[in-house]
Amino acid sequence: MAEPIEIICVGNELLIGKTLNTNAQWLAKRITTLGLSIRRITIVGDDVDEISSAAREAMQRNPRFLITTGGLGPTFDDKTLEGFANALECKLEINKEALTMVREKYREYAEERKMKRAELTAPRVKMAKLPEGAKPLSNPVGTAPGVVIGHESTTIVALPGVPSEMKGIFDGSVASLLKQVAGDVTFFETSIEATGVIESEMAPLIDKVMHDNPYVYIKSHPKGAERIPRIEFHFSTTAKNSSVARKRVSKAFVQLSELIQEKGGKIKPIKAE
Amino acid sequence: MAEPIEIICVGNELLIGKTLNTNAQWLAKRITTLGLSIRRITIVGDDVDEISSAAREAMQRNPRFLITTGGLGPTFDDKTLEGFANALECKLEINKEALTMVREKYREYAEERKMKRAELTAPRVKMAKLPEGAKPLSNPVGTAPGVVIGHESTTIVALPGVPSEMKGIFDGSVASLLKQVAGDVTFFETSIEATGVIESEMAPLIDKVMHDNPYVYIKSHPKGAERIPRIEFHFSTTAKNSSVARKRVSKAFVQLSELIQEKGGKIKPIKAE
Repeated sequence: MAEPIEIICVGNELLIGKTLNTNAQWLAKRITTLGLSIRRITIVGDDVDEISSAAREAMQRNPRFLITTGGLGPTFDDKTLEGFANALECKLEINKEALTMVREKYREYAEERKMKRAELTAPRVKMAKLPEGAKPLSNPVGTAPGVVIGHESTTIVALPGVPSEMKGIFDGSVASLLKQVAGDVTFFETSIEATGVIESEMAPLIDKVMHDNPYVYIKSHPKGAERIPRIEFHFSTTAKNSSVARKRVSKAFVQLSELIQEKGGKIKPIKAE
Repeated sequence: MAEPIEIICVGNELLIGKTLNTNAQWLAKRITTLGLSIRRITIVGDDVDEISSAAREAMQRNPRFLITTGGLGPTFDDKTLEGFANALECKLEINKEALTMVREKYREYAEERKMKRAELTAPRVKMAKLPEGAKPLSNPVGTAPGVVIGHESTTIVALPGVPSEMKGIFDGSVASLLKQVAGDVTFFETSIEATGVIESEMAPLIDKVMHDNPYVYIKSHPKGAERIPRIEFHFSTTAKNSSVARKRVSKAFVQLSELIQEKGGKIKPIKAE
């Protein structure tokens, strides 16, 4: 079993449907590809109590990593670190290294615009206030540093909500931490699309192929309604190397394809979305 | 305060990043527009224990509605109702009304294809096995009925994961239940985009405008990096009627626009995403 990971996404815009949560999908795909496994994703609003409850509950489930997105910026509603400090029962304090990062960003900003100086106002200093014992992660795109906090067996990583900043810090500082824990494993996936069969008649055949291929997970995704029969079958596995992973998936893939054709269905390979 | 709602989305495809969670966004937008407020969205995999833990935890927070998507179909990994039955400490039983719905779908399916009959196999009957006391909701698009269960002060609604089916059942049977609870309220939102100002200098101004307009929520969304200053300001409110809602938002909108211009920024109205 791969090391479990949880994600908490913070932002009212996700709860009112203003913003599509592409951050969660991007992280989920990258983390899965690195060989780790996401157990739960929780989305809460910009509310300290909601954030700290979600954090406390996630930590009780002892994930190897707990990754958050959103709520690290300079405005009143950026409350992720306050929520985590509550959950960890510690204080927020100005982190010197983080303050240096923030100061440098505004120095560059002022320089580019030929301003004399960019003051370190309270909202700017706020971005350098981290839970005690936390470390900042350099933000190659924006201003707010990412944050990493060790808590018992969990590594907490806080990333900004702006997608380009989230991705920049993840690729720059977080992916290597995850890879170290995952070790030498590979995730492999592929899909086929079948027409002329319906999901309810395929159900026992999927059971059979999964029984014969215990390391391969097969999931059927009906596209449109069941009465217009078009089903995607998605095969995935995590293995020690990509050759083993491919062989495993290929065996299950061939077996299910034959069963679909025996039922009078037609198949075509498709790229995973 | 609007009545709180929770959503639980079930599906491994969401945890491996294969599928973008458009269902959560669609539901969040519709529910918010109906005048209710989403407090939390939880995403778990196709695992009975994970589903029942998430269900139990959500029910302990006493939301007015708990809406789930995914896991109602005929295959081995469609486990939402089993997870909820565990959480509710009740059994799954064949629901006569649901069985009639499922039977009718396969009768039509067989008729269209000039088959003699479509047998009610175990995977098909599975879709009519509901927690004791639950009621099925007609699925105008696919086969698996939606499900509604009353539990203490919470109404649990289970919807399929296929977007067209989820939307069909929501619009056909669920929206009216929600509207009844929400009563006569309206959600109103609008956005402006500002250039030439950065988020950290706007932070105290947003505080001021929100202080002066206590029923309006303003959230800044930096687009791209802070050093390329382009910020969306999103204004929203929920009010007894749309004229009140519009007036409230308009007042805050004008005040913030003036403050942005005083700082040397430029503004243009944009449509909410």
